[in-house]
Amino acid sequence: MKTYRKKSFPLTKIRRFLEPGPVVLVSSAYKGERDIMTMGWHMMLGFDPALFGCFIWDQNHSFSLIRKSKQCVINLPTYDLVNAIIGVGNSHGPRVDKFKQFALTPLPASKVHAPLIAECYANFECRLIDTSLIAKYSLFIFEVIKAHVAASPPAPRYPTTLHYRGDGVFMISGHSVSYRRRFKRVNL
Amino acid sequence: MKTYRKKSFPLTKIRRFLEPGPVVLVSSAYKGERDIMTMGWHMMLGFDPALFGCFIWDQNHSFSLIRKSKQCVINLPTYDLVNAIIGVGNSHGPRVDKFKQFALTPLPASKVHAPLIAECYANFECRLIDTSLIAKYSLFIFEVIKAHVAASPPAPRYPTTLHYRGDGVFMISGHSVSYRRRFKRVNL
Repeated sequence: MKTYRKKSFPLTKIRRFLEPGPVVLVSSAYKGERDIMTMGWHMMLGFDPALFGCFIWDQNHSFSLIRKSKQCVINLPTYDLVNAIIGVGNSHGPRVDKFKQFALTPLPASKVHAPLIAECYANFECRLIDTSLIAKYSLFIFEVIKAHVAASPPAPRYPTTLHYRGDGVFMISGHSVSYRRRFKRVNL
Repeated sequence: MKTYRKKSFPLTKIRRFLEPGPVVLVSSAYKGERDIMTMGWHMMLGFDPALFGCFIWDQNHSFSLIRKSKQCVINLPTYDLVNAIIGVGNSHGPRVDKFKQFALTPLPASKVHAPLIAECYANFECRLIDTSLIAKYSLFIFEVIKAHVAASPPAPRYPTTLHYRGDGVFMISGHSVSYRRRFKRVNL
């Protein structure tokens, strides 16, 4: 699979990739173990600091790695990674090393111990900042502390992402259109 | 604008429309006042009960109507409503009646006092069940208690929705593909 040359990206603009609601791959590591999970339930919760909330099922192996390490990386896969996205969703750690199983390349992150996935279009390094909603809602609140995004060009400015509808059906992201001139500046 | 003939839809399957991350219109009413807001920060938080979390900025007029009435309707607009989506986002209540201003038709809901928007592809009636995260995160947790979805046919099975990227740019949803046979049944 192809990897991307990436550059650092402003944290206040990461909504460009996350707010449209794509399926993401969450990577984590703790004391020699590592894992990846597929995730579709997430939302932006702030620009500055860049806050991100997501639902992590307590039966998932990643749940304990993330809770213990208080870190993860949110990786944004594109449509060409559909086999890995489904395969990761079908697998349950810790028996399987999902990096090897699905030919994904772990790269060192800059601010967390969880690995970046090289084949993903973007990687968002996260620090868990609030654990108080985990017990009741399986809701983790992260601060995104570093963003790496594919350099464009050569990568497209907007990636083609998958958006899950349940029942095995994905919506594939279409083209992007700017209505910038129609917005009041304060609402952009 | 066209309206849809709708039918009741199972609450456990509303992720089909919300999980892909579309921009939605939130309608609310309290003591003779009503409002609509445009919203892009939201996520599913459960199937049964059907839980839905969303970020509502405290400067928005809808914030107080929803907090006081403890109800709202999440309406799913399609691309043809882009003018209303942007117009609602640009307006600030309570000075403007956004239904009149943007030619949207309020219809009575079945379980809440907030109105449904007839021109939207789907309407989800919601009851506010947790106010404890509003002060810290502007995060409202709703239970969806009734869903109305456009009858298909004649409406398309999957609507063409807008997904906001910031800076005035929307991603327009593309086609949907089923990978159902590739999923483990338990993960569908």
